[in-house]
Amino acid sequence: MGNCIVPYCDGPKNTNVRWTLPAVCFVWQTAMVILFGAFVRYNKEVDAHWPETKIHENITSDIENDFYFRYPSFQDVHVMIFVGFGFLMTFMKRYSFGAVGFNFLIAAFGIQWALLMQGWFHHIDSTDGMIKIGVENLINADFCVASCLIAFGAVLGKVSPVQLMVMTLFEVTLFAVEEYIILNLIHANDAGGSMVIHAFGAYFGLAVSWVLYRPNLKESSQLNGSVYHSDVFAMIACHKSHKYLYVSIFNSAICKHGDGQHRAAINTYLSLAATVLTTFAISSLFQKHGKLDMVHIQNSTLAGGVAVGTAAEFMLMPYGSLIVGFFCGLISTLGYIYLTPFMERKLKIQDTCGIHNLHGMPGVIGGIVGAISAAGATESVYGQQGLINTFVFKDDFKHRTPAVQGGYQAAAMCIAVSFGIGGGILVGLILRMPLWGDPTDDNCFDDEVYWEVPEEEDSADPVLQYNNHTVVNKHAEV
Amino acid sequence: MGNCIVPYCDGPKNTNVRWTLPAVCFVWQTAMVILFGAFVRYNKEVDAHWPETKIHENITSDIENDFYFRYPSFQDVHVMIFVGFGFLMTFMKRYSFGAVGFNFLIAAFGIQWALLMQGWFHHIDSTDGMIKIGVENLINADFCVASCLIAFGAVLGKVSPVQLMVMTLFEVTLFAVEEYIILNLIHANDAGGSMVIHAFGAYFGLAVSWVLYRPNLKESSQLNGSVYHSDVFAMIACHKSHKYLYVSIFNSAICKHGDGQHRAAINTYLSLAATVLTTFAISSLFQKHGKLDMVHIQNSTLAGGVAVGTAAEFMLMPYGSLIVGFFCGLISTLGYIYLTPFMERKLKIQDTCGIHNLHGMPGVIGGIVGAISAAGATESVYGQQGLINTFVFKDDFKHRTPAVQGGYQAAAMCIAVSFGIGGGILVGLILRMPLWGDPTDDNCFDDEVYWEVPEEEDSADPVLQYNNHTVVNKHAEV
Amino acid sequence: MGNCIVPYCDGPKNTNVRWTLPAVCFVWQTAMVILFGAFVRYNKEVDAHWPETKIHENITSDIENDFYFRYPSFQDVHVMIFVGFGFLMTFMKRYSFGAVGFNFLIAAFGIQWALLMQGWFHHIDSTDGMIKIGVENLINADFCVASCLIAFGAVLGKVSPVQLMVMTLFEVTLFAVEEYIILNLIHANDAGGSMVIHAFGAYFGLAVSWVLYRPNLKESSQLNGSVYHSDVFAMIACHKSHKYLYVSIFNSAICKHGDGQHRAAINTYLSLAATVLTTFAISSLFQKHGKLDMVHIQNSTLAGGVAVGTAAEFMLMPYGSLIVGFFCGLISTLGYIYLTPFMERKLKIQDTCGIHNLHGMPGVIGGIVGAISAAGATESVYGQQGLINTFVFKDDFKHRTPAVQGGYQAAAMCIAVSFGIGGGILVGLILRMPLWGDPTDDNCFDDEVYWEVPEEEDSADPVLQYNNHTVVNKHAEV
Repeated sequence: MGNCIVPYCDGPKNTNVRWTLPAVCFVWQTAMVILFGAFVRYNKEVDAHWPETKIHENITSDIENDFYFRYPSFQDVHVMIFVGFGFLMTFMKRYSFGAVGFNFLIAAFGIQWALLMQGWFHHIDSTDGMIKIGVENLINADFCVASCLIAFGAVLGKVSPVQLMVMTLFEVTLFAVEEYIILNLIHANDAGGSMVIHAFGAYFGLAVSWVLYRPNLKESSQLNGSVYHSDVFAMIACHKSHKYLYVSIFNSAICKHGDGQHRAAINTYLSLAATVLTTFAISSLFQKHGKLDMVHIQNSTLAGGVAVGTAAEFMLMPYGSLIVGFFCGLISTLGYIYLTPFMERKLKIQDTCGIHNLHGMPGVIGGIVGAISAAGATESVYGQQGLINTFVFKDDFKHRTPAVQGGYQAAAMCIAVSFGIGGGILVGLILRMPLWGDPTDDNCFDDEVYWEVPEEEDSADPVLQYNNHTVVNKHAEV
Repeated sequence: MGNCIVPYCDGPKNTNVRWTLPAVCFVWQTAMVILFGAFVRYNKEVDAHWPETKIHENITSDIENDFYFRYPSFQDVHVMIFVGFGFLMTFMKRYSFGAVGFNFLIAAFGIQWALLMQGWFHHIDSTDGMIKIGVENLINADFCVASCLIAFGAVLGKVSPVQLMVMTLFEVTLFAVEEYIILNLIHANDAGGSMVIHAFGAYFGLAVSWVLYRPNLKESSQLNGSVYHSDVFAMIACHKSHKYLYVSIFNSAICKHGDGQHRAAINTYLSLAATVLTTFAISSLFQKHGKLDMVHIQNSTLAGGVAVGTAAEFMLMPYGSLIVGFFCGLISTLGYIYLTPFMERKLKIQDTCGIHNLHGMPGVIGGIVGAISAAGATESVYGQQGLINTFVFKDDFKHRTPAVQGGYQAAAMCIAVSFGIGGGILVGLILRMPLWGDPTDDNCFDDEVYWEVPEEEDSADPVLQYNNHTVVNKHAEV
Repeated sequence: MGNCIVPYCDGPKNTNVRWTLPAVCFVWQTAMVILFGAFVRYNKEVDAHWPETKIHENITSDIENDFYFRYPSFQDVHVMIFVGFGFLMTFMKRYSFGAVGFNFLIAAFGIQWALLMQGWFHHIDSTDGMIKIGVENLINADFCVASCLIAFGAVLGKVSPVQLMVMTLFEVTLFAVEEYIILNLIHANDAGGSMVIHAFGAYFGLAVSWVLYRPNLKESSQLNGSVYHSDVFAMIACHKSHKYLYVSIFNSAICKHGDGQHRAAINTYLSLAATVLTTFAISSLFQKHGKLDMVHIQNSTLAGGVAVGTAAEFMLMPYGSLIVGFFCGLISTLGYIYLTPFMERKLKIQDTCGIHNLHGMPGVIGGIVGAISAAGATESVYGQQGLINTFVFKDDFKHRTPAVQGGYQAAAMCIAVSFGIGGGILVGLILRMPLWGDPTDDNCFDDEVYWEVPEEEDSADPVLQYNNHTVVNKHAEV
C-alpha cells in the first residue's frame, strides 16, 4: 500500500505542468484566434448572403442547403470525438479523468488546427485567398482529430497533457498532408477513412509509443488494469463508438449523396454484425475456462466497422460485408490475445489500448479490401454512370479504369502506413525532450499526477471513503 | 459466506461453453455468409445503378432517396438495439457484463437472421427471386431483435450464451411469421409495435422463463439486487430507452411519411410525460416511508411509450395520449410492487427484469387502445384522404371500414400474445435440454460464470479490495 | 458516528412526502388531461387532414413538412432535458438518484405545463381559440423546461420533490411571460436562449437558493462532494450537454432554416472548442500543484456554448466565435474557483452546482455579445435580404435599424435577469412554507431521505459491505 502511495506524493514534483500547460493553451488559442481572423470566413451556404445566392443558383428549397444532407448525424460524430473516444479508454481503474479529460483537450485544439490545415489544402477561395468553411469542413476536422485520438490510445497514461498538445499539433499537420496526397493527388477512395484515419493514426501512435518506450512500466502496472464498473463505463463508450463508426462512414464528407451513403450504411451495419460473432467465438475459445473477456468485446467488435470503411460505398454486396466482418473479428481478437503481449515484450511497443488490433490491422485490411473491390469493379455491376459516380472518374481522372484505381488504392494504403510510422518516430523524438513534464514510470496510469482526485481530500482507503462517509469514525476508533 | 464463494470456484466446471459457444458462433456466421450470398442483394435505391434509376423515375433530388427519410434517427434505434437494451439490465450488482455482452451477441446474430426471415416474407424480388434490402430492412430487423431483447430480460442471468443464441434463432423466426400475419394478412396497424414487438416479446420471454423455472434461485438471490452505481448505469439506459421508444415509433418503417410521423412523435412525447408523474405517485404511495424506488422510475416511466405504440399515428389527440400515459404509469408500477412477486411465488414465473410490467401489460394496453381508436375513426376527424392514408384502406382492403379495422386490430393483439406464449413454451422445452451449459441455481446472476472478471486478477489495490469477493476470505481468515 | 447516522433514521419522519407527492402528481396530471382536452389540438402539419392541406398549399414533397427540418436533432434535445441534465448533477456521492430522478419529474410536468402556457401566448388559433401544437411547440416546451433544470442545479439536494413541482409550476409560468415579452414585444433575437433560458434560469435558481439559505448546511457537507466514478458519470453528462448545447441552438424553433442554422452550428462548434483550452489553462494555473479539477472541465467547457447562443445565427465570423469561447472559459472557471465560495460565504447564496458560472455569467455575456453584434450589423456583411431574414425586420418591425435592434437586445438581457431574480425571490418565499417536507440541514445531499437506497436492503453481500456505511458499525460491534 505504502509504496503504491509514494508516487502520489512525489509524483507531482517532477510532473508539474502548472506553467507549461496554461502557457501552451493560452498561446496556441490566441494564435488560433489570430489565424482564423486572418484566413477563415464562412462559405456561401453559411453566409447571410445565402438568400441572394439561392435565387442566383435557383435553389428552390432551404432543404437543398448542404447542411441538411449532413447535420443529422454530424453531432454524433462531433460529440464522439469530443468525449466518446475518451470513454473507450476509461477501462483503467485510475485513469478515467485523464482518458476523458485529455481527449477533450486534444479534440478542442485539434479541430481548430485541422480547420486551418485542411482549409489551406482544400478550401482556399481563389477570389480572396480565404478559407471558406461550412459544415463539411467541421466534419473533416472531426475526422482528422479522430486519428489523433486513435494515436492517443497507444500512449494513454504515459504522457503529459503538454506532450499531447504537441503530438496533436504535428499529427494534424501530417494528417492534412497525407490526406491531400491520398484523396487529391492519388485520387484514392476512402469514404470511411480506413487508411487515411485509422491505419495512419494507429501506426503513428505505435511509432510514438515505441520511441517513448518505458522499460520499468511494470512498476505502475497494478494501475494498468480495469475494475468492474470501469469496464461498464468502457462498454458505454463501445456503444457510442458503434454509433460513431456507423454514422461517420455514410456521413463522410467525401461519400456521395444518395445511393453511395445508403450503401455505406448497409455495408457497415452488416460488417459490424458479423464481427461480433467471431469476436465472441475467439474470445471464448482462447481464454482459460473458455470465459469471455470484456476487453475483446469492447474493442474487437468495432474492428469490422473500421475494415469496411474504404470500400463502404463500393458494391461490396451484403455477403461481402459479412465476410470482411467475419475475418476482422477473428484477427482483431487474436491480436489482443497474442500480438499485443508479443509487441510489448519483443518489439518494445507498449500499446495501452491495443489500438493496433482495433485500428491498425483493421485499417490495413480495409485498405486491401478497398483495393481489391475497386480493381474488380465492372460496368455491369455499377452501371456506366454508377461507376463514374462511385469512383469519381471525372476531370483529370476520367480515363482511369477500375484496375488502375485498384493499384492506386493499394498505393494509398502504403502511403498512409509509412506516413504514420515515419511521422510517429519523428514526433516521438520531439516528445522525448525532458521539458514536457511527463510522468515517471512508476506513476503512469494514475490520475493523481495531473488531476485533483476527490479521494485525496479524505484519508486512506479511497473507495471506502467515498462510498462510505462513516469510515472517518472507524479511523477515529482506531 | 463460504457457500456464496463456492460457486465462483466450481461454477465454471459445469458451465464451460468453451467449445459450444465458438462452434455455434462460427457455424451460424458461416451459414449467414452463404445464405446472404445466395439470397441477398441491394435494392434499387442502394444499388449503384441508382443514377439511371433516378432519371428513369424522374426523381429530381438525391434527398428523395428513402434513406434521407429514415436514417437520421435510425442509428439511434440501431445502437439502442446493439448496446442500449443491455444497459437497462445492468442494475444487477454482478451481472453487468452478461447484460451488455449477451445483448450484443443476440443483436448481432438476430439482425442477420431477421434480414433473411423478414426478407423471405416481405422483400422477395419477383424478377430474380432475390431479397432486395435497403435501410428499411435494417430498421425492421432491428425491431425484430428488440422483441428478442425484451424476452432476454425475463431470463437474464439464468441462461447460457448458447441458450440465448438458440432462443434468438427461434424467436426471430416466429417473429417474422407473426409480423407477416398481423401486418400483411390481417392488415392491422402497429406503427410502434406495441403488439408485434412488445407484447409478443414479453409473453415469449415469460413463457420461456416459466418452463425454465428454478426452484432454488433464492440461493443466488443475494446477487440479484442492485448497488448504488449500478442503478445509475441503468438510469443511463433509461435515458437511451426513452430516446429509443421515442424515435423508434415515428421512425417505424410502416409509419407514414409526413403527418403520420409528425403525429406519432407528439403522441409519444405526451404519453411518456404523463407516465412519469403517475409512476412517481404510485411509487411513493405504496413504498414504506413513502420513499421512491429507482427501479420503478427506471422502468415504468417507459411504459407510456410502449402503450402508445399501436395508436401512435392515429388521431389520438393530445389529451388522449396523456390519458394512455396516465394509466400506464399506474398499472406498470403496481405491477412491479404486487404482480411480479405474485407471479414468482404463485405462477412460478421468474421475471428478472419485470418485463411483464414494462412490455407485457403496456403492450396489451397499446393493442386495446389501437383497436378502440381505430374503430372510432371517422372521416370528419381524419378527412377522407387522411383516413385512407392512416389505415391504408387501399388495394384489397379499400372497402374496409374503421369499425372492421378495429376488430382486426383486436384480433392482431390476441395473435401476438398467443404466438408469444405458445412459441415461448416450445422454445423453453428445447432450452431445457442438458447440453447448453446453463448455470446452476446457485451461480445465477453472476458474471464469473461466463466472463473473466477483472477483480480476480489483482487484489493488492484498494479499489479492487472492496469490489472483490476475495476480501470475503480475508474476513474468513480473521 | 451517531449524529451522522441519526438523520437517516428520523429523517424520514419530518420529510415524509408519502401523501403530498402522490397528491400533487395525481391532481396536477389530472388537471393537465382536462386542460389539454379543453384547449390543445394538432396543428395542420400534424393533423390527418395534411394530405388535403398539402395539395391546397401545393407542397410537392412530404419532406417539406416542418417535421423534417426539426426532428433529427430534436430527440437529442428532448432526451437531454428528460435525463441528461440530471447526469450533470450526479457528481455528488450520495445524490445520484435525486439528481436524475427529480430531473425526470420536473421535465415531465414542466413540458406539459409549458405547452399550455406557451400555447396561450403564441399558438392560439384565432378560428377556434384552440392551441394548435406541432413539433415546434415540443421543442419550445423543452427549452422552457431547460431553464427550470438550470434553476434546479442551484437548489439541488436541499429541497423536496414537492417543492420542485411547485417551483416548476411557477417558473414555467414566468418563463412564458418573459419569453413573450423578449421575443414578441421587444422582438429581440435569442436563437440559443442565452438570455431567455440560461440567464433567466440561473438567476431564478440563485434567488430561490438565497431565500432558502441554510446556515448549518456544513453538517451534511461531507456528502456534498464527489467520488471517482460519480465524476465519470458527470462526464458522460458533459458529453450529452455538449451535444445538447450544440443541437439545441441550430435546432431552435426560432432559428432560420438554411444559412441561419448552418451558421449557428459553426459558431457554436468553434466557441465550444476555444472554451475548452482556456478552461484547462485556468484550472491548471489556479489549483495547488497546477493540477486540473474535473469539476471545471465538466462545467466550464460548456460555457462557450451558452455564451454564443444569442448571437449564434448572426455573422459573428469564425474568429468572433473563438473570442467569445476564449473569454467564457476564462471567466467561468475563475467563477468556480473564487466567485462561488465568495457567494456562499458573503452573499449567503448556496449554489450547489455552480450554475452561476455555467449559465448565469455566460448567459449575460451571451446577451451582451448579441447586443453588440446586432448593433454592428451592416448590409455589406449580411446583404440586404440577409439582414432582413436574420433579424426579421418585417411587418411591425420593418423600419427597425441594426443599431436600434442592438439597444433592444440589451434591454432584453436586463429583463431576463430581473425576471429571474424577482421571480426567484417570490417563489423562494412560497417554498419556505413549512408544508413541503423539505430535508433538515443535516440530511441534505442524501438520497436516503426520499429514495429506497439499495444498500439498506442487504448487508450480507460482500459488494454491499464496502459500499454500505451501516455495515461498518456492524463490524465495529462484532
